[in-house]
Amino acid sequence: MFLGSDTGSPAGSPAATAVFAAVLTEGPVSRVSLARRLGLSSAAVTKAARPLIDLGYLHELAATERTGPGAGRPASPLAVRADREFFLGVKITADELIGVVCDLRAQVRTTARRPLTDPDVEAVLTEVGRLADDLLIAFSGDRTRVRRLGLALSGDVDRTTGLVRYSPFLHWRDVPLGRLAAERTGFAVTVENDVKALTAAEHWFGEGVRADSFALVTVGTGIGCGLVVNGRLVSGSYGVAGEIGHLAVDATGPDCHCGGRGCVEAIAGTDAIVAQARDHTGRPDLTIDEAVALARCGHEEVRAVFTRAGSAIGCGIAAVANLVGPTRIVVSGEGLAAYDLFDTHIRTSFERQAFGAAARCPLSIRPLPFEEWARGAAAVSIQSLVVP
Amino acid sequence: MFLGSDTGSPAGSPAATAVFAAVLTEGPVSRVSLARRLGLSSAAVTKAARPLIDLGYLHELAATERTGPGAGRPASPLAVRADREFFLGVKITADELIGVVCDLRAQVRTTARRPLTDPDVEAVLTEVGRLADDLLIAFSGDRTRVRRLGLALSGDVDRTTGLVRYSPFLHWRDVPLGRLAAERTGFAVTVENDVKALTAAEHWFGEGVRADSFALVTVGTGIGCGLVVNGRLVSGSYGVAGEIGHLAVDATGPDCHCGGRGCVEAIAGTDAIVAQARDHTGRPDLTIDEAVALARCGHEEVRAVFTRAGSAIGCGIAAVANLVGPTRIVVSGEGLAAYDLFDTHIRTSFERQAFGAAARCPLSIRPLPFEEWARGAAAVSIQSLVVP
Ligand SMILES: [Zn+2]
Ligand SMILES: [Zn+2]
Repeated sequence: MFLGSDTGSPAGSPAATAVFAAVLTEGPVSRVSLARRLGLSSAAVTKAARPLIDLGYLHELAATERTGPGAGRPASPLAVRADREFFLGVKITADELIGVVCDLRAQVRTTARRPLTDPDVEAVLTEVGRLADDLLIAFSGDRTRVRRLGLALSGDVDRTTGLVRYSPFLHWRDVPLGRLAAERTGFAVTVENDVKALTAAEHWFGEGVRADSFALVTVGTGIGCGLVVNGRLVSGSYGVAGEIGHLAVDATGPDCHCGGRGCVEAIAGTDAIVAQARDHTGRPDLTIDEAVALARCGHEEVRAVFTRAGSAIGCGIAAVANLVGPTRIVVSGEGLAAYDLFDTHIRTSFERQAFGAAARCPLSIRPLPFEEWARGAAAVSIQSLVVP
Repeated sequence: MFLGSDTGSPAGSPAATAVFAAVLTEGPVSRVSLARRLGLSSAAVTKAARPLIDLGYLHELAATERTGPGAGRPASPLAVRADREFFLGVKITADELIGVVCDLRAQVRTTARRPLTDPDVEAVLTEVGRLADDLLIAFSGDRTRVRRLGLALSGDVDRTTGLVRYSPFLHWRDVPLGRLAAERTGFAVTVENDVKALTAAEHWFGEGVRADSFALVTVGTGIGCGLVVNGRLVSGSYGVAGEIGHLAVDATGPDCHCGGRGCVEAIAGTDAIVAQARDHTGRPDLTIDEAVALARCGHEEVRAVFTRAGSAIGCGIAAVANLVGPTRIVVSGEGLAAYDLFDTHIRTSFERQAFGAAARCPLSIRPLPFEEWARGAAAVSIQSLVVP
């Protein structure tokens, strides 16, 4: 994280971090439950919570009568003050910036967008600064409580140093985006790969809460996956993990830009779908929207392209279930605008290929508004406050 | 684990368990290193090690002069007494029991085998008892120090309860093997799936030591995988994990007994290889050994069967590398008796399909004597001593 302003963390000890994270992600929770869950004494929980209460991040709810075993003593659950601090989140795409202001519980309060016409680093920094201004102007809450900015983009990103090692669509290599954006905006800045940022949001504030392990699969131009196993994000010993898009699912399938053959992305990525649909229609300028429209109107060959894509995605998701056995899997992404064309085939192929009890893993297949990506960026920023 | 005799654990606290495990798996190590590595104070390490030393599990090596930074004070590294206790390990196959006696460092001291002619639970228990007797008679060490027995077999096993939920080759369902074997033999008994047991042995005593994450892939009748991520065995939320054999790698490939299509095992399992070789030669009684011989003599079609199998295995291994990014991958199993026919194709297809830096993950491809499976069973028994 890069410090553009005073951003001392309120969590001054490992115990305080654990208490803060548990209350934030699991909602109001009693000290007794916290102590049991975190393996701490009640006294240690009270001590850890004290500065978080003093700083206004946590507060005690009114005492409630306990009715379960050991009832009698009233419990005062700890809860988060969602409006104690606010966070900017920005997703950078090839042609647009999408921004949000979130509260401490990652609820979106304000959204804004700016077009991006120039992938040059300076130009992008300028637009990020303008978008932050737009967001603050539109935001009706206390602007002095906005100190942190999360950025997310696809590509190879080192979260620890804020370095963008490689961004294919911006043609960046080794851009110290965290430091540059902190200098430019004055905020404390985090930078994360967009799929990992989205996974962080699901892990702390979505379907991943309380799941010991889960997977988020994104479908679109790229096909990606964020994995949490034993409560921790899987990052890969060589920086590669969750690359579901480059699993080989068809030995006689098309070559992939990665050098592989029959990759999920080479069959089911947006570009692959468009290319196949162009082949089948003989229309070299067909767009993805036109391909979707043709498939919906019953064009057999184009429909088959989507069927095949759904099957490839289902095989990839089954591979995740068979290898790591997540508690649940969320499938999302801009590619799911054509949800109706994919859904059945993803499920059928997942169920056929999931091994034994792995088929019991629930799939949530749902569209993903672009603002969710920006919320993911904000979620990483929230994490940087809680886990310094 | 099931107690057939007094098996109180020498590790009486979480700190003692951590110290015992670290000294056992990483070899002689100074208290200073232990404290740093485990996040404990030096006093806590000394306190945790004391009962382990008193009970003879650990001892202090002679003080050595330190030569690095901070040299001057002599360090007395802690080491394990390998002959403090011995462990029986037995792998149960369809037609044979393979047994070993291992010391505390999982070094094999004695081996023995018994044929198995009857898959009935009672008959198997009787043979396990006889094999244990054979091993103890052949063992030249102190027999009074053998108190634990580890069993391993393929199938769906619940290590916690010692229950064999399903063993396809023995036709067992819900057999409480741990309890029954403890009653029969008087030993403290652990039961584990054979691939997971082998993974445990590699994790604690093999190429997995010090690796934050690693994978063990076994090739044979079944194609399996044990995964360690962030230092912990991945067990799967629904009991399914590491099922590399049922990843779909060929959309137009053969149907699999699991209900899937184009699974790695349906292309590269021993039965699949034999079936394909029979098709190509028109010899309905061809054996796997004859198929290997034909391929080695240059029979084109049979050779192609092994090529295709190696490619499918390589795609499966690449899927492991792309999804979870282990630090290293060990490939082993009885199928690798035909190592020379597989090796190149596994590597070529892994390298083609591993995404970017994931290709840097080293593959160790090596044959696996059956005694190694039995050693895996003993390793799980050792773990049950150290981590009660
Ligand atoms: Zn690819
Ligand atoms: Zn299968």
